[in-house]
Amino acid sequence: MSLLRSTHTDRIARSHRAPLLVFAGQSNRPLAQSICDNLGVPLGNSKTEKFTNDNLIVHYEESLREGDVFIIQTFSTPVSDAIMELMLMIDAAKSASAGRVTAVIPYYSYARSDKKDSPRISIAGRLVADLLQEAGADRILMMTLHSPQVHGFFKVPVDHLSADIVLTQHFKKCVPNAHEGVVLAPDAGSIKRASHIARRLDSGLAMIDKERISDTEVRPRALIGEVEGKTVFIVDDEISTAGSLVETVNICRSMGAKDVYVAVTHGVYTGPAIERIAALDVTQVASTNTVLVPESKILAAGGKLAVLDVAPLFANAIANIHTGESVSTLFE
Amino acid sequence: MSLLRSTHTDRIARSHRAPLLVFAGQSNRPLAQSICDNLGVPLGNSKTEKFTNDNLIVHYEESLREGDVFIIQTFSTPVSDAIMELMLMIDAAKSASAGRVTAVIPYYSYARSDKKDSPRISIAGRLVADLLQEAGADRILMMTLHSPQVHGFFKVPVDHLSADIVLTQHFKKCVPNAHEGVVLAPDAGSIKRASHIARRLDSGLAMIDKERISDTEVRPRALIGEVEGKTVFIVDDEISTAGSLVETVNICRSMGAKDVYVAVTHGVYTGPAIERIAALDVTQVASTNTVLVPESKILAAGGKLAVLDVAPLFANAIANIHTGESVSTLFE
Amino acid sequence: MSLLRSTHTDRIARSHRAPLLVFAGQSNRPLAQSICDNLGVPLGNSKTEKFTNDNLIVHYEESLREGDVFIIQTFSTPVSDAIMELMLMIDAAKSASAGRVTAVIPYYSYARSDKKDSPRISIAGRLVADLLQEAGADRILMMTLHSPQVHGFFKVPVDHLSADIVLTQHFKKCVPNAHEGVVLAPDAGSIKRASHIARRLDSGLAMIDKERISDTEVRPRALIGEVEGKTVFIVDDEISTAGSLVETVNICRSMGAKDVYVAVTHGVYTGPAIERIAALDVTQVASTNTVLVPESKILAAGGKLAVLDVAPLFANAIANIHTGESVSTLFE
Amino acid sequence: MSLLRSTHTDRIARSHRAPLLVFAGQSNRPLAQSICDNLGVPLGNSKTEKFTNDNLIVHYEESLREGDVFIIQTFSTPVSDAIMELMLMIDAAKSASAGRVTAVIPYYSYARSDKKDSPRISIAGRLVADLLQEAGADRILMMTLHSPQVHGFFKVPVDHLSADIVLTQHFKKCVPNAHEGVVLAPDAGSIKRASHIARRLDSGLAMIDKERISDTEVRPRALIGEVEGKTVFIVDDEISTAGSLVETVNICRSMGAKDVYVAVTHGVYTGPAIERIAALDVTQVASTNTVLVPESKILAAGGKLAVLDVAPLFANAIANIHTGESVSTLFE
Amino acid sequence: MSLLRSTHTDRIARSHRAPLLVFAGQSNRPLAQSICDNLGVPLGNSKTEKFTNDNLIVHYEESLREGDVFIIQTFSTPVSDAIMELMLMIDAAKSASAGRVTAVIPYYSYARSDKKDSPRISIAGRLVADLLQEAGADRILMMTLHSPQVHGFFKVPVDHLSADIVLTQHFKKCVPNAHEGVVLAPDAGSIKRASHIARRLDSGLAMIDKERISDTEVRPRALIGEVEGKTVFIVDDEISTAGSLVETVNICRSMGAKDVYVAVTHGVYTGPAIERIAALDVTQVASTNTVLVPESKILAAGGKLAVLDVAPLFANAIANIHTGESVSTLFE
Amino acid sequence: MSLLRSTHTDRIARSHRAPLLVFAGQSNRPLAQSICDNLGVPLGNSKTEKFTNDNLIVHYEESLREGDVFIIQTFSTPVSDAIMELMLMIDAAKSASAGRVTAVIPYYSYARSDKKDSPRISIAGRLVADLLQEAGADRILMMTLHSPQVHGFFKVPVDHLSADIVLTQHFKKCVPNAHEGVVLAPDAGSIKRASHIARRLDSGLAMIDKERISDTEVRPRALIGEVEGKTVFIVDDEISTAGSLVETVNICRSMGAKDVYVAVTHGVYTGPAIERIAALDVTQVASTNTVLVPESKILAAGGKLAVLDVAPLFANAIANIHTGESVSTLFE
Repeated sequence: MSLLRSTHTDRIARSHRAPLLVFAGQSNRPLAQSICDNLGVPLGNSKTEKFTNDNLIVHYEESLREGDVFIIQTFSTPVSDAIMELMLMIDAAKSASAGRVTAVIPYYSYARSDKKDSPRISIAGRLVADLLQEAGADRILMMTLHSPQVHGFFKVPVDHLSADIVLTQHFKKCVPNAHEGVVLAPDAGSIKRASHIARRLDSGLAMIDKERISDTEVRPRALIGEVEGKTVFIVDDEISTAGSLVETVNICRSMGAKDVYVAVTHGVYTGPAIERIAALDVTQVASTNTVLVPESKILAAGGKLAVLDVAPLFANAIANIHTGESVSTLFE
Repeated sequence: MSLLRSTHTDRIARSHRAPLLVFAGQSNRPLAQSICDNLGVPLGNSKTEKFTNDNLIVHYEESLREGDVFIIQTFSTPVSDAIMELMLMIDAAKSASAGRVTAVIPYYSYARSDKKDSPRISIAGRLVADLLQEAGADRILMMTLHSPQVHGFFKVPVDHLSADIVLTQHFKKCVPNAHEGVVLAPDAGSIKRASHIARRLDSGLAMIDKERISDTEVRPRALIGEVEGKTVFIVDDEISTAGSLVETVNICRSMGAKDVYVAVTHGVYTGPAIERIAALDVTQVASTNTVLVPESKILAAGGKLAVLDVAPLFANAIANIHTGESVSTLFE
Repeated sequence: MSLLRSTHTDRIARSHRAPLLVFAGQSNRPLAQSICDNLGVPLGNSKTEKFTNDNLIVHYEESLREGDVFIIQTFSTPVSDAIMELMLMIDAAKSASAGRVTAVIPYYSYARSDKKDSPRISIAGRLVADLLQEAGADRILMMTLHSPQVHGFFKVPVDHLSADIVLTQHFKKCVPNAHEGVVLAPDAGSIKRASHIARRLDSGLAMIDKERISDTEVRPRALIGEVEGKTVFIVDDEISTAGSLVETVNICRSMGAKDVYVAVTHGVYTGPAIERIAALDVTQVASTNTVLVPESKILAAGGKLAVLDVAPLFANAIANIHTGESVSTLFE
Repeated sequence: MSLLRSTHTDRIARSHRAPLLVFAGQSNRPLAQSICDNLGVPLGNSKTEKFTNDNLIVHYEESLREGDVFIIQTFSTPVSDAIMELMLMIDAAKSASAGRVTAVIPYYSYARSDKKDSPRISIAGRLVADLLQEAGADRILMMTLHSPQVHGFFKVPVDHLSADIVLTQHFKKCVPNAHEGVVLAPDAGSIKRASHIARRLDSGLAMIDKERISDTEVRPRALIGEVEGKTVFIVDDEISTAGSLVETVNICRSMGAKDVYVAVTHGVYTGPAIERIAALDVTQVASTNTVLVPESKILAAGGKLAVLDVAPLFANAIANIHTGESVSTLFE
Repeated sequence: MSLLRSTHTDRIARSHRAPLLVFAGQSNRPLAQSICDNLGVPLGNSKTEKFTNDNLIVHYEESLREGDVFIIQTFSTPVSDAIMELMLMIDAAKSASAGRVTAVIPYYSYARSDKKDSPRISIAGRLVADLLQEAGADRILMMTLHSPQVHGFFKVPVDHLSADIVLTQHFKKCVPNAHEGVVLAPDAGSIKRASHIARRLDSGLAMIDKERISDTEVRPRALIGEVEGKTVFIVDDEISTAGSLVETVNICRSMGAKDVYVAVTHGVYTGPAIERIAALDVTQVASTNTVLVPESKILAAGGKLAVLDVAPLFANAIANIHTGESVSTLFE
Repeated sequence: MSLLRSTHTDRIARSHRAPLLVFAGQSNRPLAQSICDNLGVPLGNSKTEKFTNDNLIVHYEESLREGDVFIIQTFSTPVSDAIMELMLMIDAAKSASAGRVTAVIPYYSYARSDKKDSPRISIAGRLVADLLQEAGADRILMMTLHSPQVHGFFKVPVDHLSADIVLTQHFKKCVPNAHEGVVLAPDAGSIKRASHIARRLDSGLAMIDKERISDTEVRPRALIGEVEGKTVFIVDDEISTAGSLVETVNICRSMGAKDVYVAVTHGVYTGPAIERIAALDVTQVASTNTVLVPESKILAAGGKLAVLDVAPLFANAIANIHTGESVSTLFE
């Protein structure tokens, strides 16, 4: 890590550009601090408060004039506050004459609202993209969107990092003969991601076909593929209440899976999630730290929860954006 | 009231326009229902839910095609959710082909963020105005902005209602000889409003001059004018924790005021507000229902809290906007 | 059909709106004429020519002032001309004072460019969406986008029709015991569409997992699911050269499929497509008429090609948009 | 001054930025020249003429490519010409490839049109802000807006200088025991400015309460506070015909003020202003040089007129904007 | 005329549209009144004043809600005031909820600034077009632009009337054998207009070739064509100081022209124009009333000045725009 | 040439700017290569392909981050593909984080669609300008627009090169006594260009007056001026089918011209053009290489075709834009 850090530091120092300034909202400051540590720069001083009428106020405590500003904010609970805080920070940065403002959004939660499933709803993934640009964001850095098309909801340049390598390496480290296993997509929406990881592991692939019963209820129709007697790797973009995960694991088990590993990019873990995972017949559930997983949850999950660090990926991307090098070549 | 209602109903029916459709977010549904009752139209069916990852989803349960849509949402706690919900409703309405969308925001809380008090902050009143327009709002209806200049933060047409008549009539009803009293502005920012009401009451005028000690602390310097032996009418745009109100009342009392009445447009009443009001040496504290004041708070205030109904004003304005009549002539 | 037509005619006549005016570019005039026949309105007079320097010029030969204008243009070869012609028609309509302009794009070919598969490319599906809006399109009507997220590339309202019912009914008509068959997705990208149709047929589901060898080459890894001894329904959004289709059918055959039916929304049929289909071991290949399939191709395919009519769906949608009724309720 | 100048010169020379280029319209060239002298840079060569049909034409006589361009133009009579000239200069600079264009508007006269006092008027302060941005202004530098909210009428970054320190220092220099005096706000709109200055002087505060009789007539209701036997400091943002000033001074006198000093930021002095001031019972009327006060007026006022120089403040702000240093820290 | 008027009145009354409302700025109220007389509608009540600081304020004295508003303002001296007043009127109309605002600009003076003659100037014809649209103009109605390409400077729909028929009919009425004459273009820029009129008169055509000596000086090189012994019809878009006209007439005379008639669309007549015309060896100089020609000027020109009425053309165009009929078919 | 090249190379190397990157579409790669040779930089690697459904895909094969990118694309047959390819390249460059993108369009074909000749058409020159800007073009570099007003169709900065010097020098080289000749404008639209060149040659000037018979047919009315016994220089902006050129030459010949030279900026040469020129009674037809003239055409024209190189002009302009020097001073 220290080697990596010094590399960034040198690159940034050599660059004849505007100063690199990194700030963070309240939603995941440990990740922001870790990214800054990787970059070898201090996390900038800013303050967010609530007025007595519940309005947010943000305040930068150092000059941003002409700076190359990155604002790190993940969209975790309370999500509306996280979005409002980010927009206020972007607007304040622009009006304080920042040279360029990049919104770093490790978990862009509204990516799930990416199409019209039913009439008279908002495609909120596009709306929030428009709002961030209206607030003044010059570019965006995100990780593992629910669907890759969400990239196209933004007009400004987007760098879209993938956690797939991190998840794949994790599986390989956990299970020596991973290529004898099967990657399972819990629904049609995650089949592409599952297919990518299956190829990296050189393993099999399977999918659960689901059907919608009502607006809020979804039911599995069938498991397409073969899991009997095999190690199953369930991959998805996020876990929130873990309700769907429990169902997926149960189907695996009923179909004779040998053992089950789970890895997702965004460990949102809301409501009964931790309880359910603690009780679940799986070897391990891993997520990255795009969303903050507090120690208390890790403990409550009884050793089943693993958190994978993506701060180096973000630091690398920020350094490359700042120095004008290609981000695309970094994460093949 | 019933007479008024039928008048609106007739006017709306006679209009050859697109259908009038009124919807509401979650922030103050009793006010929305009351406005609809005054208009003689049903409150539209819409549903707002939270996904398990804390994302909001709104859904209209009836067609909006070509409709003249009004969406009522006040910006009370939790404010960020209220704003996000309103923007989602506006966007969903536009993409469901509403003919025109008017955002009705009885309490536009960010109006208080109307200037740069310190460097490197956002003028959030302007930012939120831009966001609402980016979301698709075609026009805006609001009541008693913190400063009237906030009107100019919007590019789309704004109708800006005043609660001054309602507050003045309330004072006159409470105090027969109101013209012998003094209207007191608690700070320089409310002197114009106080002056307007003083003229309507034909009463005296006074003001407390304050100075800022630090970013968060403000201190009274002096009371300009004369309150000794007089009935004092304190007027302001909003009360949140009532901390400033307590101070203002104490100064009045120490200067020999006879009795004290308070009336504000927006009764936000957060934190210790109700407790403080219950203990306060005033005859009455009145606010309108732009922000929902629950029965429990009214009870806890020990009879000191009055809530004045502005639903007829909003209904009248909506009817006039819908039928293309002048709003300006209604509220002189 | 005549019953349907008269219904539209009455509805349109009863509407107190601006006149309904339907025009078409050069790309699929038979479909446009058929839509107009279904609507009971004449296809509007417009003329498109090329100047001697290859510039396009479009000219409307009737007044459009205040009209509710629909312009039908599918994006088939030559695609760039089709897009330029549509944009010129939109711009000319707006500057000729059309009241509202809806671009009707049965086949939005650039929907396939919906994400960044590799660095330094354009998400052309978003770019073309922006261009159409810049040209002046007020709303869009399309059918079966490559991915449903492309809807969110547009800021203006979009109605997105599905050909799924048409395809499903076609299968049911062809194969009495369709529920005993298997719907096969030729790759991960079409799994959702395949799953929808499988549910409608109450049939099984299977998928071919592919991997990318190079920028232009893709190779099948495995067939997930079971096709042996079964009737296979291959469904996709479009067929162009039919290269991928040949491979898919061959895999089915090698896995012991009983017989194979193919149905796609957009029958683009370019290059060797017809030759390949004529030689292919399938019972039938069906597409809709979103792209014009000339008689010569149908003949050359030796009885294997079927063309399904979607003009009634478009007519219905246009009538509903014009009269302000809900499009969403029509095509469940 | 020479020390200050050399400091700027060094700072500007050390900056690795685009060249600093300062131009001026016709409205206040002496101020522009003085700002340039303070900066140690020459005033740029540009030419403004009127065609025979009264159209304006502006022409830069040196290259602006990539330059950091500041255009100084105050909005004094004829105001419409001043605004048009500034917009033509901004547009010409942008199309001549200036890197950044900052409009420096010492007196933004339309700031007074900041709200809807009556129906069916323009909030012209917002309109002119939109026009300047449409013309291409990248940022704005202004002094003492009529109300601080006008800042929020602009979307681009604004630096808003205050003349309060200059006015306060002037009073202190004129009146040794200024803290025994009273700062008087001539109406509610200037109470905040008066309060600021009272705090800086550690003096008392008073205000005249006015009421509107008709669209054009306003009448004093009362003087709130105490002026008898005291030195009165009348402060306001601008003086035009001095009609309101005469009235204010008369009220002071009738209430027994000892002596009266006046200081405003913008000395517009139109119509009978100078005559009235010459005849007025005040010790002195001071303004800054944001608006050009010609020698002839100073003479005609019989020694009562003082002009305070704000060119150093503008030079400092321009140097800081150019070198990317904080403007906010300069003028506490 | 009365017949024409009643036709409009009926058409407007029959239209089921928003009310037709016509207002005017200060620049040419007689023309506006005449247009209204032709339309059979009253000229709307609005008021424009100057504040004491030379700021303009406009105020509508009747409701504009949902109205189809036309604002007539010609760009004559003082031009900057005329443009500012028009923009304020447009903005006030939009914010007062006008349904549609059409700017009627009989003389769009900045059309002459239509290209980059020299570096580092503004193409002001485009800038002013952008400003009018930013102020809120929904469409534009103009007459005889300096070059027809200026139409393309606007994004909103433009109706561009031609005075050519009026000028041609005038020549025919004055000179029975007009077809034996020669139409003379005073420079290359007016050759197209001259050619149009020559075709209508079935007459000859000639042109003066000029060269630019310096930024402000232009010199004739040659007269191309034949004028000896013929009646010469000089046509141009406008006359301001008449300096160029004097030169053109002198050349005609020196080449042996029999007699000379002059007709232009815009009679701006500034500076020494009237004096020069009075002394000029021409039979008559005609212009339309797009710019107000006061009686005093007509008298001073000693019978040589004719003013042709274009109010019926504007009235007809406004009626057609309002009722949604084609403007293009009216003025072939 | 090599001297010029090294000069540019040095200038570019000395500049402390972002790297200069030059790419080209498919329309005229020899010109692009020649421009790069003149600049001393390599032509960038990019790839354009067509998908099987006729969609274009462009791909940059090197990093563009922060680069100063120039994309060369002329609008020659197939024009729609050329425009789409350019827009895709611009969009891909912006989203790949290019610092600035300049579209270099040697032949902007839609400049001919610069006004409304008939109702209900598009002013396509403006539309395409808007589309290029929507796609992300930051500035434009073009040569010899059909009319100079087209410059004003763009909001972004435009550098507009003229080929007049190249054409004039060519005439002077061909004809020693060029000043005794006559420059002939084939119609009113080219009279200004003809007049410029006549002044440079110090020669006479003549023009053909044409009239429109129908939408597609135009007929000469007369030749204004004198060509008998003289060398005639026909100049125009472009030749496409050469139909109009044949007619012009025939008129010259019938009026007794001694010999005829033709020179245009854009040699589009479509359809029967080369055949016609080969048969035409002219000494030579010259054009520049803004449009690629293949060897085969030059041969087929039997020695009559000359191609003049404008690559040095474009290289010079690009170098000046890149280094921030004035383009205007280069091409007087």
